[in-house]
Amino acid sequence: MVKTRPSPLRPARFPDCLPVPGVALAVAATGARYRGRDDLFCARFVEGSVAAGLFTRSRMPAAPVEWCRAALRRSGGAVRGLVVNAGNANAFTGRAGTAATARIAACFATAIGAPREAVLLASTGVIGEPLDPDPLVAAFAALDYRGDAWKAAARAIGTTDTFPKGATATAAIDGHPVVLTGIAKGSGMIQPDMATMLAFVFTNARLPVPVLDALLRRGAERSFHCITVDGDTSTSDTLLLVATGEGARHGAITDADDPRLAGFRAALEALLVDLAQQIVRDGEGAGKFVSITVSGAESDAAAKRIAFAIANSPLVKTAIAGGDPNWGRIVMAVGKSGERADRDRLAIWLGDQRVTADGARHPAYSEAAAAAHFQGREIRIRVDVGIAGGTATVWTCDLTHGYISINADYRS
Amino acid sequence: MVKTRPSPLRPARFPDCLPVPGVALAVAATGARYRGRDDLFCARFVEGSVAAGLFTRSRMPAAPVEWCRAALRRSGGAVRGLVVNAGNANAFTGRAGTAATARIAACFATAIGAPREAVLLASTGVIGEPLDPDPLVAAFAALDYRGDAWKAAARAIGTTDTFPKGATATAAIDGHPVVLTGIAKGSGMIQPDMATMLAFVFTNARLPVPVLDALLRRGAERSFHCITVDGDTSTSDTLLLVATGEGARHGAITDADDPRLAGFRAALEALLVDLAQQIVRDGEGAGKFVSITVSGAESDAAAKRIAFAIANSPLVKTAIAGGDPNWGRIVMAVGKSGERADRDRLAIWLGDQRVTADGARHPAYSEAAAAAHFQGREIRIRVDVGIAGGTATVWTCDLTHGYISINADYRS
Repeated sequence: MVKTRPSPLRPARFPDCLPVPGVALAVAATGARYRGRDDLFCARFVEGSVAAGLFTRSRMPAAPVEWCRAALRRSGGAVRGLVVNAGNANAFTGRAGTAATARIAACFATAIGAPREAVLLASTGVIGEPLDPDPLVAAFAALDYRGDAWKAAARAIGTTDTFPKGATATAAIDGHPVVLTGIAKGSGMIQPDMATMLAFVFTNARLPVPVLDALLRRGAERSFHCITVDGDTSTSDTLLLVATGEGARHGAITDADDPRLAGFRAALEALLVDLAQQIVRDGEGAGKFVSITVSGAESDAAAKRIAFAIANSPLVKTAIAGGDPNWGRIVMAVGKSGERADRDRLAIWLGDQRVTADGARHPAYSEAAAAAHFQGREIRIRVDVGIAGGTATVWTCDLTHGYISINADYRS
Repeated sequence: MVKTRPSPLRPARFPDCLPVPGVALAVAATGARYRGRDDLFCARFVEGSVAAGLFTRSRMPAAPVEWCRAALRRSGGAVRGLVVNAGNANAFTGRAGTAATARIAACFATAIGAPREAVLLASTGVIGEPLDPDPLVAAFAALDYRGDAWKAAARAIGTTDTFPKGATATAAIDGHPVVLTGIAKGSGMIQPDMATMLAFVFTNARLPVPVLDALLRRGAERSFHCITVDGDTSTSDTLLLVATGEGARHGAITDADDPRLAGFRAALEALLVDLAQQIVRDGEGAGKFVSITVSGAESDAAAKRIAFAIANSPLVKTAIAGGDPNWGRIVMAVGKSGERADRDRLAIWLGDQRVTADGARHPAYSEAAAAAHFQGREIRIRVDVGIAGGTATVWTCDLTHGYISINADYRS
């Protein structure tokens, strides 16, 4: 693992994450791969807790992803525990990998007195190395559970991450307050396809699985599905939303569109966006945070594809790294997206600078003003393609020497 | 423009390219953008010459691409001249860009005594800068045409290229020899979509436009459409095949599948592969040349998509740069391609080392042997996805600090 400096884009500090009634957290250092740091995060949930999950669409899913899918199906969403290890993704590990997940889940289930299929798993780290379950299992006996160990938990699940990622919120359902707290990890191999690297969100709202599931899918669509660091999709992407119901005094909710959920939906989406953006802010080698908004596309999906074509273009990302407002590369990326775009109506803004008009450079374009914006840490690119009303916003970072250093040396 | 060292992957020398009867070449230094080097390449073709072209599928095509499409349509493929400038792509330059192409073509047509629509154009370099036609037009009067100025021509059309790219061949049609010679440029913004950056191939075979067109499409499918440097597609991609018929003594050919064309087809495809691979060998910052062969896919198209998912993965490309046989990233790339693949039948080879079996690392895998292969300049990756009979091979290079240096500083 390469020693990297903390991202210059990190938040000033880890937020004061609220405890979530019904959730107890513990961390441990198993020594399996790293020395001198925690690499295991375990959580216990009160009886009656339920979960919804989104997982990688990779055709090569890791063993814990397969475990979670099967466990949630078998348990109908009932969940009592979560075990996450960092340093080894238990991906592409064959039958031994499957056996390791079964052993870890069974031992943790015994430790907390719950059925096996109520234990969810996630692993992150190197692909293709057999995962030895013993160091993890050995740690289960001596865990010290607390309600507020969020920062320690966020640290324990990190790999190339340079800062721990957390977010917290409160919302009222039906006039009664509930808490949401989440943590995430991720830095490279980031273009989640229906989920992210690893993110876990907990609430004490009392919501049935179908409602949780709908809320999670909707929220992910505008958060984790809008980020990219390098366009690569992990074999381990996992996003879990756990609802304990503990201490929740709101009435029964059976529909994700229930108007009483409006505040909760907004708080959840904001929390998911916060966590997703923190992953981008810790993108491997990142020096700048980039927001790309596309409008005027044939559809929202088309707008997102154009935005990702810009966000994933190595030439756009290196121009941003160099502080060079080389907008011709944005034109190139729009062109290569394959989506409908009207060259002569194409409007590009860098920050507040309008760049293009009538299929050419805008007469009033000031390269100096655009360059000044590109020298900053927070870059805004806006593109209108002049076809219809589709819009999307995605977030990414620049492509720097740091990315090459981390990934040409670190086996992640 | 950044000063870069010649690619370590370059051929030992520029080949002895044969003159093509009916083709005369000239170069000039217009001083429009570069100092102390040629930046203009002009060619004259004997009366009766015809051309086929493949152009970028970008939705933002450069003005010369639009000019060529219209000219070939109007002339029915008849062609008498070609003008190529380096340093300014005349892309996204609006009405002024269109007017510049018309002026350049008209002046060159007058200079060589041919109709305007028989003049083809190509430009490469920065996007979005107005192209002043005057320095080009001023050079037309004093050009010194020769039949063998291939190396000078290949140099004149380069931008971030670190070596000139040419290839030459002879073939017999109907027992009568013909010559093929081609030149190309390209180094970044390389994942041609139905064509490449710029490549011009000339022959004195006498072939009608539909036959030329079919041969070019077929040849490009297995050459220029199989390369990527950075996954970015240029606004200027142009591949032209010009046939003069000069001195050709073979009988009339009216069908691209004519058995008498077998030798010519093979020579053309080999020449196109040679030029396309030279572009990869000059990929921006490239330190290693990488061949990726995928078999066992649902179709040839699926195999190509999987191969490109591997070839364009920044994590795979940086691992190769670091000489680290991090094959888990290849598993990741296969998984993210979205194409059908059987995890438990997936077979990966690095060089001659079998890496995987039964959804895990092969028991006999030697990391030392794989690492030794990855230390070399020529990397071979083979993947069988265990579904059906689709195959494809693509070529790429690694992603290095050199790519970042070139593209964070150079406005290309």
